[in-house]
Amino acid sequence: MKRTADGMELEQAQALIREHSDRLGTERVAISGSHGRVLAEDVFSPMDQPPFDRAPVDGFALRASDTAGASENSPASLAVGETLYAGSWPARSVVAGTAARIMTGAPIPPGADCVIRQEDVSSGGGLVRIARPMRPGENYVYAGEDLKAGERVLLEGQCLNYAAVGILSSIGACEAAVYRLPRVALISTGDEIVEPGAPLGPGKIYNSNAFTIGLRLKELGAEVLQRGIVPDEPRALAEAMAGAAEAADLVLTTGGASVGAKDVAMESLELLGADILFKGLRMKPGSPAICGLFGRRLILCLSGNPAAASITFELLGRVALCGLAGNEGLLPVRIRAALKSGFGKPSLGRRFLRGRLVREAEAERIELVGKNSSGVLSSLLECNCLVDIPAGTGALKAGDMVDALMLGAQSFAWRQ
Amino acid sequence: MKRTADGMELEQAQALIREHSDRLGTERVAISGSHGRVLAEDVFSPMDQPPFDRAPVDGFALRASDTAGASENSPASLAVGETLYAGSWPARSVVAGTAARIMTGAPIPPGADCVIRQEDVSSGGGLVRIARPMRPGENYVYAGEDLKAGERVLLEGQCLNYAAVGILSSIGACEAAVYRLPRVALISTGDEIVEPGAPLGPGKIYNSNAFTIGLRLKELGAEVLQRGIVPDEPRALAEAMAGAAEAADLVLTTGGASVGAKDVAMESLELLGADILFKGLRMKPGSPAICGLFGRRLILCLSGNPAAASITFELLGRVALCGLAGNEGLLPVRIRAALKSGFGKPSLGRRFLRGRLVREAEAERIELVGKNSSGVLSSLLECNCLVDIPAGTGALKAGDMVDALMLGAQSFAWRQ
Repeated sequence: MKRTADGMELEQAQALIREHSDRLGTERVAISGSHGRVLAEDVFSPMDQPPFDRAPVDGFALRASDTAGASENSPASLAVGETLYAGSWPARSVVAGTAARIMTGAPIPPGADCVIRQEDVSSGGGLVRIARPMRPGENYVYAGEDLKAGERVLLEGQCLNYAAVGILSSIGACEAAVYRLPRVALISTGDEIVEPGAPLGPGKIYNSNAFTIGLRLKELGAEVLQRGIVPDEPRALAEAMAGAAEAADLVLTTGGASVGAKDVAMESLELLGADILFKGLRMKPGSPAICGLFGRRLILCLSGNPAAASITFELLGRVALCGLAGNEGLLPVRIRAALKSGFGKPSLGRRFLRGRLVREAEAERIELVGKNSSGVLSSLLECNCLVDIPAGTGALKAGDMVDALMLGAQSFAWRQ
Repeated sequence: MKRTADGMELEQAQALIREHSDRLGTERVAISGSHGRVLAEDVFSPMDQPPFDRAPVDGFALRASDTAGASENSPASLAVGETLYAGSWPARSVVAGTAARIMTGAPIPPGADCVIRQEDVSSGGGLVRIARPMRPGENYVYAGEDLKAGERVLLEGQCLNYAAVGILSSIGACEAAVYRLPRVALISTGDEIVEPGAPLGPGKIYNSNAFTIGLRLKELGAEVLQRGIVPDEPRALAEAMAGAAEAADLVLTTGGASVGAKDVAMESLELLGADILFKGLRMKPGSPAICGLFGRRLILCLSGNPAAASITFELLGRVALCGLAGNEGLLPVRIRAALKSGFGKPSLGRRFLRGRLVREAEAERIELVGKNSSGVLSSLLECNCLVDIPAGTGALKAGDMVDALMLGAQSFAWRQ
C-alpha cells in the first residue's frame, strides 16, 4: 500500500501524449463557417490585390508631366474627361493635357500616373486647375500592392481568425481546407457527483468538471461530447471509456485517478487492456494523472479535484489537442518574470502555482492568485498563468524571477 | 468642394458613441448556454464550498490527540471503524482510540480532526498504526474553504469564461442572469463590391468587410445580422439602414463614407433625418467615419477600405459594443512600450499604425507590421495592437516609447 514516489516527469508525459496524438484528417468548409478552424494547406492568392491600379482618394487622375512648373500664379489647366466611380471601368486613356474625374476605389485610367485630391484643386467649366507640380505615383495605389498573384497569403497550421477569413474573402475564396475539429469525450466519475440543479444529498458535491473542462475545450476549439457522470465502478467506467473512445478522438475523465480503495480509473484502463503510458506525475497539483492508450485513442484520466483537473488539463490535455488539431498555437507559452509577492513554502517536489501576469508601469510581474489547494476553483478566475516552481526550491520572495506558462491560446485570441 | 480640415477628435467621438449606447436588457439562460455571456447581477454562493469537511487524500481520519508522542518505536494503534468513500456519509463519530478509513473527497466524520495518508501508516487486523504525532487540521479540508455560504463569487459585468461557469456549476446554479447579446447589423455598400465566389468583372473587388468586421463582431461576443451589399444609391442605402436599425441594436456600414460624388453614407443619413453625431475624425486611417443617431439606434459608417474599416471598428465599434453589452472588458487597453524599429514619416495629423507587441528576453517591444495604407488587409494578420502617434510627431526611431492600444478582448480570452 506504499505509494510509489516515482511517477513521470511532466515533459516526458507530454512527449508521450504528443507522440500518440496524430493530426486529424482534413475537410473543406465554406469560408463563412471557417472561423476558428486551422488551415490544412498553404493558400496562394489567385489574383493581384487590389486587382487593378486604383485611386485612394476622390479627385482627378492625370499625368504628372502635365503639371511640371505649375504654381498658384500659373496653374496647369487640364480638360476633364470621363468620370470614374468605384465599380466602373475607364473607357479611354488620359492623354496629355487631360484628366479624369475619379472617386476613391475607382480604377485609374491608362495614361494617368497620379491622382490629386479634389480639395487641392479648383475646377469648373470642364477644366481642372492644379497649382503645384505632381510626382508620378502620388495618391496612386498599384495593383498587387496588398497581395500579388501567386503570393502565399496564409500558412498551413494557421488558425483562421477574423483577419485571415477576411483575406480569404478578399481574394474571392469560397472554401478553405481545414483540419477536422478534435472531438473530445468527457466523463465525470464519482459516486459523490451530482448535476447542478439536483438536490445535494449529504456527502455529495456538484459536478463542475464537466463545465470547466468542457467549456475550456470549447474555448480551445474542440468539439465536446459530454458523456455524463459514471459511478465509481470499474466495469461501468471501462464501458463508458470504450464507448467514448469509439465516438471521439480523445477521452478525458475526471476523478477516480488516485490510490484509494475506489480509485477506479486505473482498474478500468486495465479491464480495457489499455497500454498505460504513465501513471502519476512528479508535480503538484494533479500528481495522480494517468494516461492510457486504447487502440489508437488516448484516455487521459485527471484528478477529480476541480482546480487540479483544470491545471492538469492545461498541462496535458492541450498537448493532445495541439497534436490532433495541427495547431501549435494551442501550447501554453513559457515566459520568465518577477514575482510580485513571495511564496513562503519550500517546494520539495515540482509545483505549479496559479498566477496572474500583470502589467505595472513599463514592466510585468506575476501575482500569485491565492489559494492553491487542489479543490479550490475560485482562484482560477483570476489566473492567467501557471508558475512553474522546480523541485527543491526554497521559499520565494517578491522580485524573485520565475518561469510561468501563459494560459492564453495564442491563435484563438489577439495577444494581450 | 473644399474638404473641411475639421472633423472630431477620436476621444470626443468615442464619448458620444458611449453616451448613446445604452446597456441592453437582461435575460436568464441555462448555465450550459451562458459561456461568453456577461453577468447582469452579482452571484452569491448559496452554500459552503466544499459543503462539508472532507479528506484531500486517501488514508485514515483520526483524532490528533490519539497520536501524541507516537514514534517508529512506539506507534499509536487505533481501531479502524467504518470506511468512508466520496459520496458516502459517516454513520458514527470517531471516538478516542479509533479511526475511520477514508478516501479522497469523503466527508470527515465528527470527532476526527486530521487525516493521515494511507502511504504513511501500516494497517491490518482492523488496526492502523501511526508512527508520528499528528497536528489537528493536518490533511483536512474545511467546509467553505473555497467559498463560504453568502460569499459573492461573481460580479455583475463579468464575462462568463470557462472558470466562471465552472464556479456557477459548483454551487449548483442552473441559470444565470446575463445581458442580452448585442445584435449588430452589417451593411456593405459600393457598386464595386462582389461576393466571393462570383466572377470579378473589371473595376470590381471582392467583399471582405462583411467577413472581417462580421467575424470580429462575433469574436467580441455580438450577434451579427448580415444585410448584404447595397449599391451606391442614397435611397437604397437609407432604406437598408432603416430596416437594419429596426432589426438590430447597432448598425454598421462600410464604404461610401467619404467626400466623393458617390459617397452616399452622409446623404442616406440625411434622407433618414438622422442626427449627425460626427462626420470625419482627426486621424488616419478611417478619417471619413460618420456616426448618425436614428431614433435610439447608432448608425456608424466606416470607410470601405478594408484595413481602415477594421481599425476604425476597433476604435469606434468596440465602444458601442462595450456600452450595449455592459462589458468594460471590450475596450482596448492602452499600454506604453518601446518601438522595435523606426517609422520614417513625420505625422502631421494623428495616426494609428498597425503593430505587434512581442516579448523579447524579459521586456516587450512593439514591431510595426508593415504596410499601413488603408486598403492593405494582409498586415492585420500580424497586428495585435494599434500604435497611437499623436499629431505633430516627427520621424520615430527604434527604442522610442509609444502608446498602443492592445486589440485583445480581455474578457473573452486569457491574457497572453
